[in-house]
Amino acid sequence: MKILILNGPNLNLLGTREPEIYGHTTLADIEARCMALGAELGAEITCRQSNAEHALVEEIQQARGAFDAIIINAAAYTHTSVAIHDALKASGLRIMEVHLSNIHAREAFRHHSHISPIAEGVICGLGVMGYEAAIRALTA
Amino acid sequence: MKILILNGPNLNLLGTREPEIYGHTTLADIEARCMALGAELGAEITCRQSNAEHALVEEIQQARGAFDAIIINAAAYTHTSVAIHDALKASGLRIMEVHLSNIHAREAFRHHSHISPIAEGVICGLGVMGYEAAIRALTA
Amino acid sequence: MKILILNGPNLNLLGTREPEIYGHTTLADIEARCMALGAELGAEITCRQSNAEHALVEEIQQARGAFDAIIINAAAYTHTSVAIHDALKASGLRIMEVHLSNIHAREAFRHHSHISPIAEGVICGLGVMGYEAAIRALTA
Amino acid sequence: MKILILNGPNLNLLGTREPEIYGHTTLADIEARCMALGAELGAEITCRQSNAEHALVEEIQQARGAFDAIIINAAAYTHTSVAIHDALKASGLRIMEVHLSNIHAREAFRHHSHISPIAEGVICGLGVMGYEAAIRALTA
Amino acid sequence: MKILILNGPNLNLLGTREPEIYGHTTLADIEARCMALGAELGAEITCRQSNAEHALVEEIQQARGAFDAIIINAAAYTHTSVAIHDALKASGLRIMEVHLSNIHAREAFRHHSHISPIAEGVICGLGVMGYEAAIRALTA
Amino acid sequence: MKILILNGPNLNLLGTREPEIYGHTTLADIEARCMALGAELGAEITCRQSNAEHALVEEIQQARGAFDAIIINAAAYTHTSVAIHDALKASGLRIMEVHLSNIHAREAFRHHSHISPIAEGVICGLGVMGYEAAIRALTA
Amino acid sequence: MKILILNGPNLNLLGTREPEIYGHTTLADIEARCMALGAELGAEITCRQSNAEHALVEEIQQARGAFDAIIINAAAYTHTSVAIHDALKASGLRIMEVHLSNIHAREAFRHHSHISPIAEGVICGLGVMGYEAAIRALTA
Amino acid sequence: MKILILNGPNLNLLGTREPEIYGHTTLADIEARCMALGAELGAEITCRQSNAEHALVEEIQQARGAFDAIIINAAAYTHTSVAIHDALKASGLRIMEVHLSNIHAREAFRHHSHISPIAEGVICGLGVMGYEAAIRALTA
Amino acid sequence: MKILILNGPNLNLLGTREPEIYGHTTLADIEARCMALGAELGAEITCRQSNAEHALVEEIQQARGAFDAIIINAAAYTHTSVAIHDALKASGLRIMEVHLSNIHAREAFRHHSHISPIAEGVICGLGVMGYEAAIRALTA
Amino acid sequence: MKILILNGPNLNLLGTREPEIYGHTTLADIEARCMALGAELGAEITCRQSNAEHALVEEIQQARGAFDAIIINAAAYTHTSVAIHDALKASGLRIMEVHLSNIHAREAFRHHSHISPIAEGVICGLGVMGYEAAIRALTA
Amino acid sequence: MKILILNGPNLNLLGTREPEIYGHTTLADIEARCMALGAELGAEITCRQSNAEHALVEEIQQARGAFDAIIINAAAYTHTSVAIHDALKASGLRIMEVHLSNIHAREAFRHHSHISPIAEGVICGLGVMGYEAAIRALTA
Amino acid sequence: MKILILNGPNLNLLGTREPEIYGHTTLADIEARCMALGAELGAEITCRQSNAEHALVEEIQQARGAFDAIIINAAAYTHTSVAIHDALKASGLRIMEVHLSNIHAREAFRHHSHISPIAEGVICGLGVMGYEAAIRALTA
Repeated sequence: MKILILNGPNLNLLGTREPEIYGHTTLADIEARCMALGAELGAEITCRQSNAEHALVEEIQQARGAFDAIIINAAAYTHTSVAIHDALKASGLRIMEVHLSNIHAREAFRHHSHISPIAEGVICGLGVMGYEAAIRALTA
Repeated sequence: MKILILNGPNLNLLGTREPEIYGHTTLADIEARCMALGAELGAEITCRQSNAEHALVEEIQQARGAFDAIIINAAAYTHTSVAIHDALKASGLRIMEVHLSNIHAREAFRHHSHISPIAEGVICGLGVMGYEAAIRALTA
Repeated sequence: MKILILNGPNLNLLGTREPEIYGHTTLADIEARCMALGAELGAEITCRQSNAEHALVEEIQQARGAFDAIIINAAAYTHTSVAIHDALKASGLRIMEVHLSNIHAREAFRHHSHISPIAEGVICGLGVMGYEAAIRALTA
Repeated sequence: MKILILNGPNLNLLGTREPEIYGHTTLADIEARCMALGAELGAEITCRQSNAEHALVEEIQQARGAFDAIIINAAAYTHTSVAIHDALKASGLRIMEVHLSNIHAREAFRHHSHISPIAEGVICGLGVMGYEAAIRALTA
Repeated sequence: MKILILNGPNLNLLGTREPEIYGHTTLADIEARCMALGAELGAEITCRQSNAEHALVEEIQQARGAFDAIIINAAAYTHTSVAIHDALKASGLRIMEVHLSNIHAREAFRHHSHISPIAEGVICGLGVMGYEAAIRALTA
Repeated sequence: MKILILNGPNLNLLGTREPEIYGHTTLADIEARCMALGAELGAEITCRQSNAEHALVEEIQQARGAFDAIIINAAAYTHTSVAIHDALKASGLRIMEVHLSNIHAREAFRHHSHISPIAEGVICGLGVMGYEAAIRALTA
Repeated sequence: MKILILNGPNLNLLGTREPEIYGHTTLADIEARCMALGAELGAEITCRQSNAEHALVEEIQQARGAFDAIIINAAAYTHTSVAIHDALKASGLRIMEVHLSNIHAREAFRHHSHISPIAEGVICGLGVMGYEAAIRALTA
Repeated sequence: MKILILNGPNLNLLGTREPEIYGHTTLADIEARCMALGAELGAEITCRQSNAEHALVEEIQQARGAFDAIIINAAAYTHTSVAIHDALKASGLRIMEVHLSNIHAREAFRHHSHISPIAEGVICGLGVMGYEAAIRALTA
Repeated sequence: MKILILNGPNLNLLGTREPEIYGHTTLADIEARCMALGAELGAEITCRQSNAEHALVEEIQQARGAFDAIIINAAAYTHTSVAIHDALKASGLRIMEVHLSNIHAREAFRHHSHISPIAEGVICGLGVMGYEAAIRALTA
Repeated sequence: MKILILNGPNLNLLGTREPEIYGHTTLADIEARCMALGAELGAEITCRQSNAEHALVEEIQQARGAFDAIIINAAAYTHTSVAIHDALKASGLRIMEVHLSNIHAREAFRHHSHISPIAEGVICGLGVMGYEAAIRALTA
Repeated sequence: MKILILNGPNLNLLGTREPEIYGHTTLADIEARCMALGAELGAEITCRQSNAEHALVEEIQQARGAFDAIIINAAAYTHTSVAIHDALKASGLRIMEVHLSNIHAREAFRHHSHISPIAEGVICGLGVMGYEAAIRALTA
Repeated sequence: MKILILNGPNLNLLGTREPEIYGHTTLADIEARCMALGAELGAEITCRQSNAEHALVEEIQQARGAFDAIIINAAAYTHTSVAIHDALKASGLRIMEVHLSNIHAREAFRHHSHISPIAEGVICGLGVMGYEAAIRALTA
């Protein structure tokens, strides 16, 4: 099984800012842990991060054929991007949505996700373990 | 670590009805898998199910002091019970919210949860693996 | 044909209070008339009333296999119970929704029903004749 | 007792189109069954159908003095006509509202009725038996 | 000055029904009083009533060139007819909107008028004197 | 018959500003015309204007016993003052609401009036003739 | 291919009024151009206009069997008529919705169409060329 | 005078949890103070608490004939229970609604009460003195 | 303890108008009872009433330093005055909100209070006893 | 250039209360700084403050002819006063709206301003420098 | 005439995915057909596609002076991009909005377009013929 | 003090289009004036403009450590970008929001800003002087 892990805008800052919400783990730490778990479970993990909506759209477009599933933490684009929704839907791949923090316990504008209606599962508030749970669910 | 797993109304039917939404696993299967994972991770798991709102409220009230965390799938009461919200908040315990199906991909009245604003994490659409992810997150 | 007639909260008071809305007929009168009509039409009628949401949920759960259809007047729970909605949906039985008064001519919070979207028919404002109409429709 | 049965727009098509929603019974069949039941119960039944809002308004205006009650299935005008509401209210007659299908299980714009607030009873989803239930209720 | 007075659905019933809202004056009485006042003020008054939306639309279409102004009490169509709005706007004539009762003191669905935004004046609650005030204003 | 005519904030500017909305007539002109018409119809007219909400409230309080009716153009307070609503309701007098311009053809925040639900009649868009229509209606 | 072109209320006025919105072309011009294009593309075009909702409903009812498709510009009824929606849906024909002006650039009450959800295509703002585009699309 | 004091879900926890909202007084303390004040004012006080909606409904049903008034702090059910509303209304007794904290200064979902519209008085934010104020008001 | 009791617009009319809502007690009666209770409980009571929003704002501004608490029945300004909200908040004093009638059982526009979110307690529907309850709560 | 600076309710308290929102500067300080800057830029500055809505309305009415521009911080009346909106609009002067704090970062009821739609510029959150920015902009 | 055809995010996938919504035609096919029709009608057609919002904004910025009109299918950005709206408005060019599918028959979040209010025409549901209709309208 | 001035989409067009809204000043003019004022006040000013949301996000990310404050005119992204909101919040810098025009006097969709809730100040409608006011406020 091949899994693409996509992280969206500002997640490159992880571990350096607002640790009271996102913790001290860096994106590299998260990716390393996901790679390790993937290796353990026999899944090939590829990680990408971008601050650009179109770059995420294009990663998703290119995932078709190359991957079996996408784990996506679209961060701010979760709430505003129909383009990512469309790309994910068109990919035909299995989709897992992850958020490091519990978005339902934050500002109202973070309560709606354009991705959830087309995701297989949605995990929020588990920090890096959310990605791990998604990997386990996909490889089960 | 002691964890109380609470399942709400109609979850006693699991595995017997609407398998297209909830799958073929029974509640006993879920509980057995959670107990096994708990044993593996050194957590003591106790499982309760009730169709009654007040019974869930009282399980939560009594959990204080007896447990360190609650994993709750309140099913229909997720969307309607302020009493469960209040009991969870008053318990002072760590709360993980789990749903077998992805509630955001179902009817609009299932998109709002009275539990999410006070939960540490929210996991939906992973089936029984959602409970396991919650156990892992609590014992990490 | 076996039909379960379920009456919800405060309907045990029928005939004793607020007769300007509900009339002078008692619940026992209604049940007797339904039994008589069932006998006439070759349907076996069983009647249950409860003020408890979970008790209604469990009556519905147990109806599967034992009955062919449910006639339900969920009274106040009509407007607030997702748990009854879920139990009815999971039962796989034919559902008829009845209200003694015309709920659309009363307070705005009585205009929405959680049951109507999954009912075969909805009858309100006919008093006891609403139950009889439901029995006739089910046995037709 | 004299009862006027009014059917609104597109109901002249009954039995010929969209049978998955409205069934195979024609309007003539419905009217015949209503006449038969009226005869049996000692009620004189008159049936009218029109696709025109004003024609329905005028039938209702002329019903005063000539009839004791109106059974109305206003179809699409249920949701849009204040004029029919006003005519029914001004008639001073008993009003029964009937819909062949369960409008609450269909599109959202069919969930509100301008007639329900002034009707004695509302019956939907029973097909032709809805008219019969209305006749029985009026003649009881 | 030539004025067309248009009355809408159910106003032909005036004086015969719901006198607690509309009073005992008949439409003929109103028309007679308007004609008399018109004569006094040097205006030529023509009166039409119809229960049909399209008939009102066509009266308005034909008014262009033949009349200087329209006084309209569209009754129920006030709240539902975009077609009458469009016809009035296209007529290029001066428009006065009249209602016998104070629609703002009645049901919420009577508080919005499709005609008011394109009327010169709006008068409600003055009974027949509302038409007279409109005639005076037009002839001033 | 004794009638109090109350004019609200900024109406003292009438005839000097925004004539495209309010015309060139001054408040004194309006009051003079009202006095004249009152004299003609046998009504005693008293006129007051204030820019202060509490002053209007107190004029209304003192009107009880001294007047039979109030004609009020509360201007901006129409849309914001519950205090004036309460004073008018408590006065027990007949109330006529007047606006010089057609408030329904202006900004959305002018479409709701706190006075209309307790007024006998509402007249807008007739300019000074609106006051005259109110006087005629009260003295009829 | 046989196509019925239906035009709704006030479109008989085309070319004579409000040319800043609708242009100088008359309905006869539009119909002539459609007939010509139909002839060119091998489609038989029939044109009807009515100001009456029920007349449009009945044209649609009779179109079944006689036509392959309907091009409809329901004008004001676009926004208010569920009856036309129902007739179009029951017809089983292909539906193209046309508006001369861009309804999305006009008043808010023109932004919702009861026809769009059941139309194959929606064209607005192209003037008479909108009808031609619909004919081309149907005959392609 | 006989008064029933009903306390709803989670109020059995009073004095043990969330003292920043509810204070350190236990439910037993509250009941004792109410009994004492009742004795002083010549009222017979009976206290009941339940976490179950149906138990509260049944206490209310049985109160009729046995009590003159009910003081109710329905806690979470205040915001969700139509069944308690119905039972209170059907009881025909005087109703006083009490909340320990000021619900209007808390989360938005606590701002609406199903009980207030049928209560004689509503008191919130006075802690145990709220119950005392209700007792005084009832015995005055 | 020094307490300022502020009464808002139209409360000077108490006892003379709309007794079915407010009773026969005059404002002087209320003030006398409050003074008496204050004397009994060792609190110094000062009473003010004004129909003017700014006068209430200024009373509140001057209360700082001179009083320990304010009991306010802002009447109509409860629902419309942000200025009173701001003055109360800036005063730093304890605030008790009182309404003679149960505002939640009246018109919808009386259900929201600008004062409640910053008040310690809110009491409505107890008539003059509401002020007494506030005095007791403040002096407890 | 002559500029009138108007400050609304509770701004007379500046520097004495809630310094965490408004800072320690007094209104006299602000006025002095504005006068100084005006002198430097060749503008004649006049300052007025009132807690009364009508007083502000009248200051604005009298500003016409006497001033070229108004800088207004209407404080609480920003959100509630249509009368001030109307007076400003009728003045025909240039309008600058200032708020000491950032109203968009405060309670939701402070997010809407009745003044903004008719102001040339809106400045909030700059403290006293907001007034200075307005003076600079007007004199540029 | 020079026309720029702009296609937005995910339209590069056309013909390869979700053919039940978008058909089997590729973007190259569409562009070829548009070029051919342009050649036939004497218009010079240039085609661009981008998944990036800013790239579309910049194409539009550069179109000014270089093109006479823009045909835009902004896909997902239709519903979310104010930046494209602003660029189109600033371009001063004629704008035609095209959608391959009927967006009004899809999810609710696709019913609103930021482009429609500033477009000359809007065409949806005609597939590639929508572009052709736009070209014809622009070149007419 | 080091200040980053960020300008968003379409602001590169300033001075060339829609001068009735934005004036004739170019972006280069604005930047030059800001640099000059910065020099005068001892602040080091850096200016960036981008039409791309991600480029703005990345400018903000890199500002941390390099700048003390950001003055941002996010133009269209003001209303749609949660990503910029997140980047600004994570930067920990002082934020000033500027708009050339008064966004509250334009279309409703421009009235909400994702930036305002986290900005120190918001200035709109002052044209280039808005940037200058922000610089003054930051350097004060």
